[in-house]
Amino acid sequence: MLPDPIKKFVDEISKLPSIGPRQATRLAFYVAGLGKNKIREISDAVSGLGNLTTCARCFRTHLGRGNLCSICSDASRSKDLIAIVEKETDLMSLEKTKKFSGWYLVIGELHKTGDLEPEQKLRLASLKTFIKKELGGQAEEIILAVNPTVYGDLNASLLKKELGEYAKKITRLGRGIPTGGEIEFADEDTLSSALERRS
Amino acid sequence: MLPDPIKKFVDEISKLPSIGPRQATRLAFYVAGLGKNKIREISDAVSGLGNLTTCARCFRTHLGRGNLCSICSDASRSKDLIAIVEKETDLMSLEKTKKFSGWYLVIGELHKTGDLEPEQKLRLASLKTFIKKELGGQAEEIILAVNPTVYGDLNASLLKKELGEYAKKITRLGRGIPTGGEIEFADEDTLSSALERRS
Repeated sequence: MLPDPIKKFVDEISKLPSIGPRQATRLAFYVAGLGKNKIREISDAVSGLGNLTTCARCFRTHLGRGNLCSICSDASRSKDLIAIVEKETDLMSLEKTKKFSGWYLVIGELHKTGDLEPEQKLRLASLKTFIKKELGGQAEEIILAVNPTVYGDLNASLLKKELGEYAKKITRLGRGIPTGGEIEFADEDTLSSALERRS
Repeated sequence: MLPDPIKKFVDEISKLPSIGPRQATRLAFYVAGLGKNKIREISDAVSGLGNLTTCARCFRTHLGRGNLCSICSDASRSKDLIAIVEKETDLMSLEKTKKFSGWYLVIGELHKTGDLEPEQKLRLASLKTFIKKELGGQAEEIILAVNPTVYGDLNASLLKKELGEYAKKITRLGRGIPTGGEIEFADEDTLSSALERRS
Protein backbone atom coordinates (compact mmCIF):
# COMPACT_ATOMS: atom_id res chain seq x y z
CA MET A 1 0.00 0.00 0.00
CA LEU A 2 2.83 2.45 0.81
CA PRO A 3 4.87 3.57 -2.21
CA ASP A 4 8.25 1.86 -2.26
CA PRO A 5 10.42 4.92 -1.51
CA ILE A 6 8.23 5.76 1.48
CA LYS A 7 8.55 2.19 2.76
CA LYS A 8 12.33 2.26 2.39
CA PHE A 9 12.58 5.59 4.20
CA VAL A 10 10.35 4.40 7.04
CA ASP A 11 12.41 1.20 7.37
CA GLU A 12 15.65 3.13 7.78
CA ILE A 13 14.46 6.07 9.82
CA SER A 14 12.31 4.16 12.29
CA LYS A 15 15.43 2.26 13.37
CA LEU A 16 16.99 5.46 14.69
CA PRO A 17 16.69 6.12 18.42
CA SER A 18 13.55 7.95 19.57
CA ILE A 19 11.85 7.80 16.14
CA GLY A 20 8.98 5.34 15.86
CA PRO A 21 7.32 4.01 12.70
CA ARG A 22 4.44 6.49 12.94
CA GLN A 23 6.70 9.52 13.17
CA ALA A 24 8.86 8.06 10.39
CA THR A 25 5.82 7.69 8.13
CA ARG A 26 4.71 11.26 8.74
CA LEU A 27 8.26 12.46 8.08
CA ALA A 28 8.44 10.44 4.86
CA PHE A 29 5.35 12.11 3.38
CA TYR A 30 6.48 15.48 4.66
CA VAL A 31 9.93 15.19 3.10
CA ALA A 32 8.47 13.77 -0.12
CA GLY A 33 6.38 16.93 -0.36
CA LEU A 34 9.40 19.24 -0.08
CA GLY A 35 10.46 18.72 -3.69
CA LYS A 36 13.55 17.29 -5.37
CA ASN A 37 15.99 20.12 -4.49
CA LYS A 38 15.26 20.15 -0.79
CA ILE A 39 15.30 16.34 -0.72
CA ARG A 40 18.77 16.38 -2.27
CA GLU A 41 19.97 18.87 0.37
CA ILE A 42 18.75 16.62 3.17
CA SER A 43 20.22 13.49 1.61
CA ASP A 44 23.56 15.34 1.14
CA ALA A 45 23.47 16.39 4.78
CA VAL A 46 23.08 12.73 5.74
CA SER A 47 25.83 11.45 3.48
CA GLY A 48 28.13 14.23 4.72
CA LEU A 49 28.20 12.44 8.06
CA GLY A 50 30.18 9.71 6.27
CA ASN A 51 33.18 12.06 6.20
CA LEU A 52 33.49 11.99 9.97
CA THR A 53 35.82 9.66 11.80
CA THR A 54 36.32 8.66 15.41
CA CYS A 55 39.26 9.99 17.36
CA ALA A 56 41.67 7.13 18.05
CA ARG A 57 42.18 8.30 21.63
CA CYS A 58 38.94 9.75 22.98
CA PHE A 59 36.51 8.15 20.47
CA ARG A 60 34.95 11.48 19.76
CA THR A 61 33.42 12.06 16.33
CA HIS A 62 35.55 14.51 14.37
CA LEU A 63 36.32 15.71 10.88
CA GLY A 64 40.04 15.30 11.07
CA ARG A 65 42.85 14.49 8.73
CA GLY A 66 44.87 12.81 11.46
CA ASN A 67 43.91 10.06 13.87
CA LEU A 68 43.43 12.43 16.77
CA CYS A 69 40.75 15.06 17.28
CA SER A 70 41.54 18.72 17.96
CA ILE A 71 41.36 18.23 21.74
CA CYS A 72 43.57 15.13 21.85
CA SER A 73 46.16 16.67 19.52
CA ASP A 74 46.28 19.93 21.53
CA ALA A 75 49.68 19.86 23.25
CA SER A 76 48.61 22.50 25.77
CA ARG A 77 46.03 20.19 27.31
CA SER A 78 47.01 18.10 30.28
CA LYS A 79 47.35 14.38 29.48
CA ASP A 80 46.92 13.10 33.02
CA LEU A 81 43.53 14.65 33.67
CA ILE A 82 40.75 12.66 32.02
CA ALA A 83 36.99 13.16 32.02
CA ILE A 84 34.82 10.19 31.10
CA VAL A 85 31.61 11.35 29.43
CA GLU A 86 28.76 9.34 27.99
CA LYS A 87 27.89 11.51 25.02
CA GLU A 88 29.50 14.03 22.68
CA THR A 89 26.88 16.53 23.77
CA ASP A 90 28.05 16.16 27.40
CA LEU A 91 31.61 16.78 26.19
CA MET A 92 30.45 19.91 24.37
CA SER A 93 28.71 21.24 27.48
CA LEU A 94 31.87 20.75 29.54
CA GLU A 95 34.04 22.38 26.84
CA LYS A 96 31.77 25.43 26.86
CA THR A 97 32.71 26.09 30.49
CA LYS A 98 36.36 26.54 29.40
CA LYS A 99 37.29 25.25 32.87
CA PHE A 100 38.60 21.85 31.87
CA SER A 101 42.14 21.51 30.60
CA GLY A 102 42.40 17.72 30.32
CA TRP A 103 41.06 15.33 27.70
CA TYR A 104 37.99 13.13 27.45
CA LEU A 105 36.95 9.56 26.96
CA VAL A 106 33.57 9.29 25.22
CA ILE A 107 32.34 5.95 26.50
CA GLY A 108 28.84 5.95 24.96
CA GLU A 109 25.51 5.86 26.77
CA LEU A 110 25.70 3.55 29.76
CA HIS A 111 23.07 0.90 30.45
CA LYS A 112 20.78 1.26 33.43
CA THR A 113 21.89 -2.20 34.50
CA GLY A 114 25.54 -1.18 34.73
CA ASP A 115 26.53 -3.67 32.02
CA LEU A 116 29.13 -2.48 29.55
CA GLU A 117 28.78 -3.12 25.83
CA PRO A 118 31.73 -4.75 24.02
CA GLU A 119 32.58 -1.40 22.39
CA GLN A 120 32.54 0.29 25.80
CA LYS A 121 34.88 -2.34 27.20
CA LEU A 122 37.24 -1.71 24.27
CA ARG A 123 37.23 2.01 24.99
CA LEU A 124 38.02 1.46 28.66
CA ALA A 125 40.80 -0.97 27.70
CA SER A 126 42.22 1.63 25.33
CA LEU A 127 42.16 4.20 28.17
CA LYS A 128 44.01 1.80 30.46
CA THR A 129 46.62 1.12 27.79
CA PHE A 130 47.13 4.87 27.34
CA ILE A 131 47.54 5.37 31.08
CA LYS A 132 50.03 2.51 31.30
CA LYS A 133 52.10 3.55 28.30
CA GLU A 134 51.93 7.33 28.44
CA LEU A 135 51.35 8.12 32.10
CA GLY A 136 53.42 5.41 33.76
CA GLY A 137 50.40 3.54 35.10
CA GLN A 138 48.46 6.26 36.88
CA ALA A 139 46.63 9.38 35.79
CA GLU A 140 46.50 12.34 38.14
CA GLU A 141 42.69 12.35 38.13
CA ILE A 142 39.80 10.70 36.33
CA ILE A 143 36.51 12.63 36.49
CA LEU A 144 33.48 10.39 36.02
CA ALA A 145 31.27 12.99 34.34
CA VAL A 146 28.09 10.89 34.28
CA ASN A 147 24.68 12.26 35.24
CA PRO A 148 23.88 12.55 38.96
CA THR A 149 21.00 10.07 38.71
CA VAL A 150 20.40 6.70 40.32
CA TYR A 151 21.67 4.98 37.17
CA GLY A 152 24.58 7.38 36.88
CA ASP A 153 25.52 6.61 40.49
CA LEU A 154 25.46 2.88 39.80
CA ASN A 155 27.59 3.20 36.69
CA ALA A 156 29.98 5.60 38.37
CA SER A 157 30.60 3.18 41.21
CA LEU A 158 31.24 0.35 38.74
CA LEU A 159 33.61 2.52 36.70
CA LYS A 160 35.36 3.56 39.89
CA LYS A 161 36.06 -0.09 40.76
CA GLU A 162 37.21 -0.75 37.20
CA LEU A 163 39.59 2.21 37.07
CA GLY A 164 40.60 2.45 40.73
CA GLU A 165 44.26 1.58 40.25
CA TYR A 166 44.64 3.75 37.15
CA ALA A 167 44.31 7.16 38.81
CA LYS A 168 45.44 8.83 42.00
CA LYS A 169 42.02 10.39 42.35
CA ILE A 170 38.64 9.43 40.92
CA THR A 171 36.04 12.19 41.20
CA ARG A 172 32.55 13.10 40.05
CA LEU A 173 31.01 16.47 39.23
CA GLY A 174 29.86 18.49 42.24
CA ARG A 175 26.20 18.43 43.21
CA GLY A 176 24.25 21.37 44.49
CA ILE A 177 21.63 23.93 43.68
CA PRO A 178 21.94 25.01 40.04
CA THR A 179 22.65 28.69 39.43
CA GLY A 180 19.32 30.51 39.32
CA GLY A 181 17.62 27.71 41.23
CA GLU A 182 15.62 28.23 44.39
CA ILE A 183 16.28 26.56 47.75
CA GLU A 184 12.55 26.15 48.29
CA PHE A 185 12.24 23.90 45.25
CA ALA A 186 15.47 21.91 45.59
CA ASP A 187 14.94 18.25 46.49
CA GLU A 188 16.43 16.84 49.70
CA ASP A 189 19.34 15.06 48.02
CA THR A 190 20.41 18.16 46.16
CA LEU A 191 20.09 20.27 49.28
CA SER A 192 22.11 17.80 51.36
CA SER A 193 24.84 17.88 48.75
CA ALA A 194 24.72 21.66 48.67
CA LEU A 195 25.11 21.77 52.48
CA GLU A 196 28.01 19.33 52.50
CA ARG A 197 29.78 21.23 49.74
CA ARG A 198 29.13 24.71 51.09
CA SER A 199 31.95 27.13 50.50
CA MET B 1 32.65 23.68 18.02
CA LEU B 2 30.48 21.12 16.17
CA PRO B 3 32.14 19.46 13.17
CA ASP B 4 30.80 20.88 9.93
CA PRO B 5 28.90 17.78 8.70
CA ILE B 6 27.15 17.55 12.08
CA LYS B 7 26.17 21.22 11.90
CA LYS B 8 24.78 20.79 8.38
CA PHE B 9 22.79 17.71 9.37
CA VAL B 10 21.36 19.44 12.45
CA ASP B 11 20.41 22.49 10.34
CA GLU B 12 18.43 20.37 7.88
CA ILE B 13 16.91 17.84 10.24
CA SER B 14 15.83 20.23 12.97
CA LYS B 15 13.64 22.00 10.41
CA LEU B 16 11.49 18.88 10.03
CA PRO B 17 8.26 18.74 12.01
CA SER B 18 8.51 17.34 15.55
CA ILE B 19 12.33 17.19 15.54
CA GLY B 20 14.07 19.83 17.64
CA PRO B 21 17.73 20.84 17.56
CA ARG B 22 18.62 18.65 20.56
CA GLN B 23 17.12 15.50 19.05
CA ALA B 24 18.75 16.40 15.72
CA THR B 25 22.16 16.72 17.39
CA ARG B 26 21.82 13.36 19.12
CA LEU B 27 20.69 11.80 15.83
CA ALA B 28 23.66 13.34 14.00
CA PHE B 29 26.23 11.76 16.32
CA TYR B 30 24.29 8.50 16.32
CA VAL B 31 24.15 8.29 12.53
CA ALA B 32 27.80 9.39 12.24
CA GLY B 33 28.69 6.39 14.40
CA LEU B 34 26.89 3.91 12.13
CA GLY B 35 29.67 3.86 9.54
CA LYS B 36 29.89 4.78 5.88
CA ASN B 37 27.76 1.94 4.46
CA LYS B 38 24.80 2.46 6.74
CA ILE B 39 25.04 6.23 6.23
CA ARG B 40 24.84 5.71 2.48
CA GLU B 41 21.75 3.50 2.89
CA ILE B 42 20.00 6.19 4.90
CA SER B 43 20.98 8.95 2.49
CA ASP B 44 19.75 6.79 -0.43
CA ALA B 45 16.47 6.25 1.39
CA VAL B 46 16.08 10.02 1.67
CA SER B 47 16.95 10.75 -1.94
CA GLY B 48 14.59 7.97 -3.07
CA LEU B 49 11.74 10.19 -1.91
CA GLY B 50 12.64 12.46 -4.81
CA ASN B 51 11.18 9.87 -7.19
CA LEU B 52 7.69 10.41 -5.83
CA THR B 53 5.17 12.73 -7.43
CA THR B 54 1.81 14.12 -6.43
CA CYS B 55 -1.37 12.78 -8.01
CA ALA B 56 -2.87 15.47 -10.22
CA ARG B 57 -6.35 14.72 -8.94
CA CYS B 58 -6.19 13.77 -5.26
CA PHE B 59 -2.74 15.26 -4.44
CA ARG B 60 -1.64 12.04 -2.89
CA THR B 61 2.07 11.15 -2.98
CA HIS B 62 2.64 8.31 -5.40
CA LEU B 63 5.31 6.60 -7.45
CA GLY B 64 3.50 6.71 -10.73
CA ARG B 65 4.39 6.99 -14.35
CA GLY B 66 1.12 8.75 -15.20
CA ASN B 67 -0.39 11.85 -13.65
CA LEU B 68 -2.90 9.92 -11.60
CA CYS B 69 -2.34 7.64 -8.63
CA SER B 70 -3.56 4.05 -8.51
CA ILE B 71 -6.80 5.03 -6.75
CA CYS B 72 -7.68 7.89 -9.09
CA SER B 73 -6.90 5.83 -12.19
CA ASP B 74 -8.96 2.86 -10.95
CA ALA B 75 -12.04 2.82 -13.21
CA SER B 76 -13.98 0.63 -10.78
CA ARG B 77 -14.02 3.35 -8.14
CA SER B 78 -16.93 5.72 -7.99
CA LYS B 79 -16.12 9.23 -9.19
CA ASP B 80 -18.97 11.00 -7.43
CA LEU B 81 -18.09 9.86 -3.91
CA ILE B 82 -15.24 11.89 -2.46
CA ALA B 83 -13.57 11.75 0.94
CA ILE B 84 -11.56 14.77 2.04
CA VAL B 85 -8.70 13.73 4.32
CA GLU B 86 -5.98 15.79 5.91
CA LYS B 87 -3.10 13.34 5.67
CA GLU B 88 -1.94 10.40 3.58
CA THR B 89 -1.90 8.33 6.73
CA ASP B 90 -5.62 9.05 7.25
CA LEU B 91 -6.22 7.94 3.67
CA MET B 92 -4.31 4.74 4.33
CA SER B 93 -6.37 3.98 7.43
CA LEU B 94 -9.60 4.42 5.46
CA GLU B 95 -8.30 2.27 2.60
CA LYS B 96 -7.52 -0.51 5.03
CA THR B 97 -11.22 -0.80 5.93
CA LYS B 98 -11.94 -1.73 2.27
CA LYS B 99 -15.34 -0.08 2.80
CA PHE B 100 -14.80 3.01 0.70
CA SER B 101 -15.25 2.85 -3.05
CA GLY B 102 -14.83 6.52 -3.94
CA TRP B 103 -11.73 8.67 -4.24
CA TYR B 104 -9.97 11.11 -1.96
CA LEU B 105 -8.81 14.67 -1.78
CA VAL B 106 -5.70 15.02 0.41
CA ILE B 107 -6.04 18.60 1.59
CA GLY B 108 -3.11 18.73 4.02
CA GLU B 109 -3.16 19.38 7.75
CA LEU B 110 -5.75 22.02 8.57
CA HIS B 111 -4.99 24.98 10.82
CA LYS B 112 -6.63 25.22 14.22
CA THR B 113 -7.82 28.66 13.20
CA GLY B 114 -9.75 27.33 10.23
CA ASP B 115 -7.62 29.37 7.81
CA LEU B 116 -6.69 27.62 4.58
CA GLU B 117 -3.18 27.81 3.16
CA PRO B 118 -2.79 28.90 -0.48
CA GLU B 119 -1.96 25.31 -1.47
CA GLN B 120 -5.09 24.07 0.31
CA LYS B 121 -7.21 26.64 -1.54
CA LEU B 122 -5.73 25.42 -4.83
CA ARG B 123 -6.64 21.83 -3.96
CA LEU B 124 -10.21 22.78 -3.13
CA ALA B 125 -10.44 24.78 -6.37
CA SER B 126 -9.17 21.77 -8.28
CA LEU B 127 -11.85 19.61 -6.63
CA LYS B 128 -14.55 22.09 -7.58
CA THR B 129 -13.31 22.18 -11.18
CA PHE B 130 -13.42 18.38 -11.30
CA ILE B 131 -16.95 18.32 -9.93
CA LYS B 132 -18.08 20.94 -12.45
CA LYS B 133 -16.42 19.34 -15.45
CA GLU B 134 -16.75 15.63 -14.71
CA LEU B 135 -19.80 15.38 -12.48
CA GLY B 136 -21.99 18.07 -13.98
CA GLY B 137 -21.70 20.37 -10.99
CA GLN B 138 -22.57 18.08 -8.06
CA ALA B 139 -21.01 15.05 -6.48
CA GLU B 140 -23.26 12.45 -4.88
CA GLU B 141 -21.51 12.80 -1.53
CA ILE B 142 -18.50 14.47 0.02
CA ILE B 143 -17.27 12.91 3.27
CA LEU B 144 -15.33 15.33 5.43
CA ALA B 145 -13.03 12.76 7.02
CA VAL B 146 -11.37 15.12 9.49
CA ASN B 147 -10.77 14.23 13.13
CA PRO B 148 -13.72 14.48 15.53
CA THR B 149 -12.02 17.17 17.62
CA VAL B 150 -12.96 20.78 18.38
CA TYR B 151 -10.61 21.94 15.61
CA GLY B 152 -11.84 19.26 13.25
CA ASP B 153 -15.40 20.38 13.90
CA LEU B 154 -14.51 23.99 13.12
CA ASN B 155 -12.71 23.07 9.92
CA ALA B 156 -15.48 20.69 8.87
CA SER B 157 -18.12 23.38 9.23
CA LEU B 158 -16.02 25.80 7.16
CA LEU B 159 -15.42 23.17 4.47
CA LYS B 160 -19.13 22.39 4.48
CA LYS B 161 -19.95 26.03 3.71
CA GLU B 162 -17.26 26.12 1.03
CA LEU B 163 -18.45 22.95 -0.70
CA GLY B 164 -22.17 23.09 0.05
CA GLU B 165 -23.34 23.54 -3.54
CA TYR B 166 -20.90 20.96 -4.91
CA ALA B 167 -22.47 17.85 -3.40
CA LYS B 168 -25.96 16.49 -2.76
CA LYS B 169 -24.80 15.33 0.64
CA ILE B 170 -21.94 16.41 2.87
CA THR B 171 -21.20 13.99 5.71
CA ARG B 172 -18.65 13.27 8.42
CA LEU B 173 -17.50 9.98 9.90
CA GLY B 174 -19.77 8.50 12.55
CA ARG B 175 -18.93 9.03 16.19
CA GLY B 176 -19.38 6.51 18.94
CA ILE B 177 -17.64 4.14 21.28
CA PRO B 178 -14.65 2.57 19.57
CA THR B 179 -14.70 -1.20 19.18
CA GLY B 180 -13.17 -2.70 22.30
CA GLY B 181 -13.90 0.48 24.25
CA GLU B 182 -15.82 0.58 27.52
CA ILE B 183 -18.96 2.58 28.19
CA GLU B 184 -17.71 3.40 31.67
CA PHE B 185 -14.70 5.24 30.28
CA ALA B 186 -16.33 6.95 27.30
CA ASP B 187 -16.62 10.73 27.63
CA GLU B 188 -20.03 12.43 27.56
CA ASP B 189 -19.77 13.68 23.97
CA THR B 190 -18.83 10.26 22.64
CA LEU B 191 -21.60 8.63 24.62
CA SER B 192 -24.20 11.16 23.43
CA SER B 193 -23.15 10.47 19.84
CA ALA B 194 -23.31 6.74 20.47
CA LEU B 195 -26.85 7.10 21.84
CA GLU B 196 -28.01 9.23 18.93
CA ARG B 197 -26.53 6.85 16.39
CA ARG B 198 -27.68 3.65 18.07
CA SER B 199 -28.64 0.95 15.63
